[in-house]
Amino acid sequence: MYDPDLDALLAPVRPDLERVESLLCATLDQVEEPLGPSLRRFFAGGKRLRPALVILVGRLFGPLPPASYKLAAAIEVLHAATLIHDDVLDRATMRRGQETLHVTWSTNAAVLAGDCLLARAMVLSGEIAAAGTPEVMVRLAESLCTICAGEICQTLAPHRDHSREAYYRRIEGKTASLCAVTAETAGLLAGADPSQSAALRRFGHELGIAYQIVDDVLDLAGDEGQTGKPSGKDLCCGLVTLPVLSYLESSKESSRENAEGENPVETVLRGQCDAAHVRAAIKAIRASGAVESALQEARDHAARAQEALEALPDTSARQTLHALTHYITCRAH
Amino acid sequence: MYDPDLDALLAPVRPDLERVESLLCATLDQVEEPLGPSLRRFFAGGKRLRPALVILVGRLFGPLPPASYKLAAAIEVLHAATLIHDDVLDRATMRRGQETLHVTWSTNAAVLAGDCLLARAMVLSGEIAAAGTPEVMVRLAESLCTICAGEICQTLAPHRDHSREAYYRRIEGKTASLCAVTAETAGLLAGADPSQSAALRRFGHELGIAYQIVDDVLDLAGDEGQTGKPSGKDLCCGLVTLPVLSYLESSKESSRENAEGENPVETVLRGQCDAAHVRAAIKAIRASGAVESALQEARDHAARAQEALEALPDTSARQTLHALTHYITCRAH
Repeated sequence: MYDPDLDALLAPVRPDLERVESLLCATLDQVEEPLGPSLRRFFAGGKRLRPALVILVGRLFGPLPPASYKLAAAIEVLHAATLIHDDVLDRATMRRGQETLHVTWSTNAAVLAGDCLLARAMVLSGEIAAAGTPEVMVRLAESLCTICAGEICQTLAPHRDHSREAYYRRIEGKTASLCAVTAETAGLLAGADPSQSAALRRFGHELGIAYQIVDDVLDLAGDEGQTGKPSGKDLCCGLVTLPVLSYLESSKESSRENAEGENPVETVLRGQCDAAHVRAAIKAIRASGAVESALQEARDHAARAQEALEALPDTSARQTLHALTHYITCRAH
Repeated sequence: MYDPDLDALLAPVRPDLERVESLLCATLDQVEEPLGPSLRRFFAGGKRLRPALVILVGRLFGPLPPASYKLAAAIEVLHAATLIHDDVLDRATMRRGQETLHVTWSTNAAVLAGDCLLARAMVLSGEIAAAGTPEVMVRLAESLCTICAGEICQTLAPHRDHSREAYYRRIEGKTASLCAVTAETAGLLAGADPSQSAALRRFGHELGIAYQIVDDVLDLAGDEGQTGKPSGKDLCCGLVTLPVLSYLESSKESSRENAEGENPVETVLRGQCDAAHVRAAIKAIRASGAVESALQEARDHAARAQEALEALPDTSARQTLHALTHYITCRAH
């Protein structure tokens, strides 16, 4: 989705991002028909935050290493594959303002599209390995393992763990691990030393955590037209995100009950997902201050990401990474 | 499934295969609960033909390169991932004599299991790349792309192409491409020169084609207790395999009609998949000589695979590869 603020922020690296875009197009052109056009539409909706991270981190250390474009494309393709399969698992109907692939087509098409993109990401990272940086491949593969492990826990574990620790473990697997690896591998290509690599990992991790908290807040406090997803989707799936946790914690102290004598959020979490109940739950969460408290937690993680940047070369790319981190906690979608 | 003939054939490389088995166990141990035990049962049913290929090809050139064990494990894990997703796409209920994962668990579990195994295969091949042979990674990834492209055509193409060319294209994608890459990458690790690499590719390709034709014959002429799959499964999915093609070609000449005045195979292909119709179709195919004619075609490909071996060092490993090729066209499952 187009966002003028993000567009202005990334203006200095626009030519680099255009080159990544060409690589993405070339990659999608290789996808067998009839899946190609659907995937092109799916990709068109992305913000390209991960490619921007690769380019900006690469530029921290001087001229951009040529393999950075391929790494940016590989990570965006890997990310897209995990989103498409995630939508199958969640039975999500909307993503990036469009019907999800398994709704437009079928579950089979979505499973195949994800596999096909994973295979393409493997080719791209295999080529990076062949060009001299095989560690990138191992890191990306390990991150995919972490993402899968998180999904297995979330989807198949017999009991849902509604603790704060479980929430953080989940978003670490879902988002932060790939962001950490994105920053780290971009640094690896550019010759980051071990302490810089550690700082990049920390930066990516904290940024990913902040990003996911904001994403979870937008599920409850965002505008559907802007987020491209129906509000309360996570809640209806029984997913207890940080604002919901904050709400539930605070509602233990002050009793908040609906007409049926029950907390309206717990009603939805129990599976009562009709529009009226979801609206009531969202209203209750918004009124409780839980949204603001979760956003504060996101801002704390963003501040830690910005702190991590201080160990890295003081360049205009670093300033952009700093601003991008700020943008992430203020974005509306 | 245990087969004493295959067991005797592979006796000389049993210790190597045991090491691959340990690596596979270690890999599966890293899969998040609760998926681990189901995957261990799934793996227990495999014949390990691809690992055997890796080991035998490696031994053609002298002492086995240490990375061969990892390559064998990576390929077996990749293969398992594609089988699990393939069963989701086909809605298959049985595989390797057991209920398929998406039946025992759910489609979600099977999608995740496949993803998780793809990620593990990526880690293993990333480690091979890091140890100095990144080409292996690229080849495996390209083979996964070919497998996905084949599945996209088979599953999503609006019209089914029932020609012999389409059949060969499909089994090239489904089976022969990974067998070709298995033999080729095993040779790459062992220092095969370009002409030996080409011979290995050709060997793997022809072996894979022969293997898949026999597999397709077993769907119609095999014993369900031995194949571990219900007979006529492909036919019920509308898949026209080589014996079916041979039957349809010959039935154009001599008219063969059932009580409804229709060719019994076409009845099933049109979606009449109750047990009586499937039995009648299988009986008609078996009686027509189409099974024998397809097996002859498999034997021709096996002979070409054996011819390709002649360009490779004359060792006991080569004799075993020769015998393995013969075994494949004579196996009962």
